[in-house]
Amino acid sequence: MATSTRLRALLPHMKHPIVAAPMAFVSGADLAVAVSRAHGLGFIAGGYDLPKLDAELHRARSLLGAPEGQSLPIGVGLFAWTSAADPSQARQLLSTILTHRPCALWLFAPAVPGADGFRHWVDAIHQSSSASSSSSSLSPQRPVVFAQVASVREALDAAEAGVDVVVAQGADAGGHGSKAGAGLISLVPEVRDALPPALPLLAAGGVMDGRGLAAVLALGADGAALGTRFLASREAAVQPGLQRAIIEASDGGQSTVRTRLFDEMRGTTSWPPAYDGRALRNDTVADWERSDGSEAARDELRAAYRRAADAGDYRRLVVWAGTGVGLARKVQPAGEIVAELVRECDQVVGQLRERVVGM
Amino acid sequence: MATSTRLRALLPHMKHPIVAAPMAFVSGADLAVAVSRAHGLGFIAGGYDLPKLDAELHRARSLLGAPEGQSLPIGVGLFAWTSAADPSQARQLLSTILTHRPCALWLFAPAVPGADGFRHWVDAIHQSSSASSSSSSLSPQRPVVFAQVASVREALDAAEAGVDVVVAQGADAGGHGSKAGAGLISLVPEVRDALPPALPLLAAGGVMDGRGLAAVLALGADGAALGTRFLASREAAVQPGLQRAIIEASDGGQSTVRTRLFDEMRGTTSWPPAYDGRALRNDTVADWERSDGSEAARDELRAAYRRAADAGDYRRLVVWAGTGVGLARKVQPAGEIVAELVRECDQVVGQLRERVVGM
Repeated sequence: MATSTRLRALLPHMKHPIVAAPMAFVSGADLAVAVSRAHGLGFIAGGYDLPKLDAELHRARSLLGAPEGQSLPIGVGLFAWTSAADPSQARQLLSTILTHRPCALWLFAPAVPGADGFRHWVDAIHQSSSASSSSSSLSPQRPVVFAQVASVREALDAAEAGVDVVVAQGADAGGHGSKAGAGLISLVPEVRDALPPALPLLAAGGVMDGRGLAAVLALGADGAALGTRFLASREAAVQPGLQRAIIEASDGGQSTVRTRLFDEMRGTTSWPPAYDGRALRNDTVADWERSDGSEAARDELRAAYRRAADAGDYRRLVVWAGTGVGLARKVQPAGEIVAELVRECDQVVGQLRERVVGM
Repeated sequence: MATSTRLRALLPHMKHPIVAAPMAFVSGADLAVAVSRAHGLGFIAGGYDLPKLDAELHRARSLLGAPEGQSLPIGVGLFAWTSAADPSQARQLLSTILTHRPCALWLFAPAVPGADGFRHWVDAIHQSSSASSSSSSLSPQRPVVFAQVASVREALDAAEAGVDVVVAQGADAGGHGSKAGAGLISLVPEVRDALPPALPLLAAGGVMDGRGLAAVLALGADGAALGTRFLASREAAVQPGLQRAIIEASDGGQSTVRTRLFDEMRGTTSWPPAYDGRALRNDTVADWERSDGSEAARDELRAAYRRAADAGDYRRLVVWAGTGVGLARKVQPAGEIVAELVRECDQVVGQLRERVVGM
């Protein structure tokens, strides 16, 4: 009980400990709102495009039927490295986002390692929040700050920087994450033991169903953040070809790979060097592995990639996916996914009790 | 209940679903017997040395006070690739082992991929068992055959080959394992769904305490096999320097690395190409990463490694360890580890029930 109380003290409308992780180009207003309506917590991905984010946040308010000025029960995800070159850019980003009053911000991949990388943002969020609070008569609107980390060290840095929720991302996660890292089975307990007891901890990376949710709760997390499972939701802003690839994939440890190849293909190469991304092994990966590794081979691959992008061909385009991809078996409404996770988790925990007592 | 029944039908003396995984040069009679006495299941590692294994099995019988001919409540682990070059070597190995009547054999890393790699062994075990049964008036003594796998495909191959228990090893495991693979969080549920329901499944790789045990049970496993945690047991046949390195390590996803470098240093290079091993990042790894990668650099490193071996210097010698190494905090008797795991798991499951019901 203590655990979920800890999280709900910050986010009272989260009835279920289930978060839809922000996924760039995937997590828009539709997905975030659907998950929050099902009493989880949905995030819109800030991604690379501020005007687009602004539009999605307007759309979220409209979908939720929330009056102007009222806090929204959804969060926004930020690539913390993107504005590193220009602090005024970070301030503009925050000021745009906070106008919409999301209940949470999710920081990922600060440009500078250590507590300073997170503190820079936490301080800016606090300042921006108090500035916008003073211009309104509403209750405090500081968003809950989530920080995504991949190690014990980073978790301690995030705590020191004053974040409100730590998200431990295991090596099984799809999309961008730390090149080096542990899976949740050992990462969550070690991070939990290292963090101050009052600080909520979520687990991300490989959780796909109620079994995974029950497992991370057993490991000591307050809840789970899921990406790949929600990629196979009706509200994900993706093309059907991408979802087909997700549904058809199996044996996720073999059919996915961690690589920076797709960043090179797409030109999203500003990620700090400690990061790569997990995606489905497809023709782009196979061609690269067969190539001589030369710059010419890379250029040829890039040209093929651009043609695939024009054609929407997901045998070649990146499909970010975690090792749990084999457990994504159909496209469902996001709200149904949340309800199913809760039902399964209840069932698993009930059975576990019988099994352990019976041992 | 059904799950542990499934496992206990094969191994009636296993009261707790906890296995000490066979670790070459670590798991001798002392460790295996201590774990089995605590009502888990201990394995002696077959490793590279048949006379040594023979001696350990004699010693196990003596420690257990078991009369000649009676089946031993401990298992033996085999590198399934080692005898590939010579089938008569495999028969000799089996005939020596089965004379001692261990209750289980654990197969790992067959030389040939696919079901044939396992079937070769399963058939040989069945033949050798019936041959030795006929020379004795005792009850059937065919050992329970465990197969360690790292993917859904391999699990299905093992099932097809007729093994009795599948051990899914996640990418977090210490020591040798598949280069490519998922962590237990997604591997266990996907393998469980793919296997015939009656086939018991154990999970290995990153489980360190009762939280990890409860988690793999929630994921659908019948129990857990632990290596790194038992490396920090009093009965592990290792030098104190190695155990100090284990106890002092933290942040396992960062302080361990998957590599074939230590096989090159030690000359254990016959592993099939799909395997590498997870070990602590130490001076050998750092020196190699700093080197120019040449054959000369490798030779120099090898010479330094031999000197370290003579000196018992674990800043340079391999310390196989999983990403859970940060959770190994003291050296304990192996029986105490089993009892602690059971106690913690009970507690975690009890709390989980309250937390989920409270949600």
